[in-house]
Amino acid sequence: MKYPLGIHSFGRNIGIKDNTLDFAVIYSENICQAAAVFTRNNYPGSPIIVGRDHIQDGKLQAIVINSKNSNVATGKQGIDDSYQICAEVAKSLSIDPRNILPSSTGVIGVPLPMEKLIPACQTAKQYLKPGNLDEVAEAIMTTDTRKKISYREIQNGSSNGVMFGMAKGAGMIEPNMATMLSYIISDFLPESGDIKGLLKKAVDRSYNCITIDSDTSTSDTVVLMCSGLAGTISDDLFYEHLESIAIDLSKKIARDGEGATKLLELTVKQARDENQANKIGKSILNSPLIKTAIYGGDPNWGRFVMAVGKVFDEPIPYDQLSIYLGGIPVKGADAITKQKIAEYLKKEEEIVITVELGSGNVQKTYWSCDLTEGYIKENAYYTT
Amino acid sequence: MKYPLGIHSFGRNIGIKDNTLDFAVIYSENICQAAAVFTRNNYPGSPIIVGRDHIQDGKLQAIVINSKNSNVATGKQGIDDSYQICAEVAKSLSIDPRNILPSSTGVIGVPLPMEKLIPACQTAKQYLKPGNLDEVAEAIMTTDTRKKISYREIQNGSSNGVMFGMAKGAGMIEPNMATMLSYIISDFLPESGDIKGLLKKAVDRSYNCITIDSDTSTSDTVVLMCSGLAGTISDDLFYEHLESIAIDLSKKIARDGEGATKLLELTVKQARDENQANKIGKSILNSPLIKTAIYGGDPNWGRFVMAVGKVFDEPIPYDQLSIYLGGIPVKGADAITKQKIAEYLKKEEEIVITVELGSGNVQKTYWSCDLTEGYIKENAYYTT
Repeated sequence: MKYPLGIHSFGRNIGIKDNTLDFAVIYSENICQAAAVFTRNNYPGSPIIVGRDHIQDGKLQAIVINSKNSNVATGKQGIDDSYQICAEVAKSLSIDPRNILPSSTGVIGVPLPMEKLIPACQTAKQYLKPGNLDEVAEAIMTTDTRKKISYREIQNGSSNGVMFGMAKGAGMIEPNMATMLSYIISDFLPESGDIKGLLKKAVDRSYNCITIDSDTSTSDTVVLMCSGLAGTISDDLFYEHLESIAIDLSKKIARDGEGATKLLELTVKQARDENQANKIGKSILNSPLIKTAIYGGDPNWGRFVMAVGKVFDEPIPYDQLSIYLGGIPVKGADAITKQKIAEYLKKEEEIVITVELGSGNVQKTYWSCDLTEGYIKENAYYTT
Repeated sequence: MKYPLGIHSFGRNIGIKDNTLDFAVIYSENICQAAAVFTRNNYPGSPIIVGRDHIQDGKLQAIVINSKNSNVATGKQGIDDSYQICAEVAKSLSIDPRNILPSSTGVIGVPLPMEKLIPACQTAKQYLKPGNLDEVAEAIMTTDTRKKISYREIQNGSSNGVMFGMAKGAGMIEPNMATMLSYIISDFLPESGDIKGLLKKAVDRSYNCITIDSDTSTSDTVVLMCSGLAGTISDDLFYEHLESIAIDLSKKIARDGEGATKLLELTVKQARDENQANKIGKSILNSPLIKTAIYGGDPNWGRFVMAVGKVFDEPIPYDQLSIYLGGIPVKGADAITKQKIAEYLKKEEEIVITVELGSGNVQKTYWSCDLTEGYIKENAYYTT
């Protein structure tokens, strides 16, 4: 595994909930150009309030993260705690606390165990190892079943650089805004310096196109940090890798949705515009009846018609609508075709859905997962 | 059980799918004043297209219903089939086919078995029994686990009348429009004759306030028929009973949601207007994370904060927001309070949720059910 130049990090256990990794720091030798996108939930977590403050100047040198407690709905104390975490880490690393972005993920409404976090922040420096970002990817997990990492080595003439991304997902994930925790770090800088514009564009085609359960987390954060230690590359080359990593991580989040057994990839074609594609795409992928039918391998195509039809303000004439599962047209399927669809749904772990609206030329892809008993079990007893 | 004067009906099995009741007719000796509200799904079932046509003049004399097949997404043939069903029943009953409303509920996308339905329609008259509406309530069930009936005897001076309602629900139920199949029949007429206005008002406070799974059926239909055989009563008295029956049936639909173990009753208080109450009410009751937490008895109150906060365009200041479960304030609950909430959730079958927004004086109540493994099982293998 290759890491961006000048990056040091660690993940460790400090006993917030159990004995899994729950605390991590990412540190860059130099101050990075950076941008972040946060949740649109009206009750953002304390770290988001502090993060919005610290990212204002477009610069970051470190990220400090804890899992197992989101520091959300914890009032003024929660915000003070997030500022204090940055202050203690800054002292340990001898950097400006305003160049640190804090993140927390886990249960809502429980004060952070500061008696465990403060010593961990104060001793941050001694745990840092060069690169080591896969350990961070593990430390940010909550109900995720696997680490989510995506990286690309980038060559530009004689310069070699790396773009490294990680994410955590699992539940309380709905599109239409940034998502979960995700950090993307590169030693290349894009020529224009427009980190924020490039990040927003990539987020809109990746994280904003996934939904696990239609519930919008209060902690969603995507951060992009660029040290420039490997030099500068064109915006196009930079964006190509950024989008590729963002989509890769988004698919990993969708595939690892709570209780999921399958990844759903839906492409809406022939849409009038992105807005129409988004509404219909999300109506389909948020439908519990579609997600359970795919789980059970039930070729119940009428549910796709229902889900398109319930977008009241975007009527698509029925004759103009086409729906495909694994390339098989499903509208009006006869018994043999239904059998084929059922086999496809049961056999594959990645279900490809295509919906053609006959309304224009816009095309967009969305991801989700099936809905199973595992989601219910996971969430019926989460805090108890 | 008392029935409205002049009503005859039956439910029987004609073998559409299995050996449960699947075909029903309701017949009134005289032509009734009537109104109906239908689904807003853009792909309404064929019976809805025909029903909209037949109800235009505000008159009905019969309803013909089959379960186990919804006659949705069946093209021109499906519409022809619904017209033919009305024609055959009309011949048997010697009435005008345009005074018959057809309904179908069940799987989408499968042509009706007309070879079974035509003989059943042709022999309708011989199966009719006086009153007998509970048999119809049984015949309209699909995945419902129990019949849903609500009736009131109404006294007005020396006149006695009856308002009798029935419904079926179970899955593919989401608010913001009419719901499922429901028929309310009375031998009283309201003074003003404004059947439609009274029905719309009642639907907006009952069927439009329930959600099982956020999926909008293509078959939703609520019909009100008034024979006037018991005379005329004031609009107020008529509406009082109409709303009471509509809410009673709506609660029964919510309580019998697929896989449900609990009825959720949410009252949004101190809303600025109905629109704000609706958005926040539905965000809470459509949240899978809230529905699973209630199922598991998990006092995870942060999820309520999340669900209010994800209504992006209706920000409520956090300090202004109050949330109660069974009367217990939950925001910032300590360990003892959480224990009490968990006990309440585990013990009760009707969970009372109150949310105060501090934004105005509007109050509205909504109903739903919890989300369990039962919903997944029911819907993963529905058609296979």
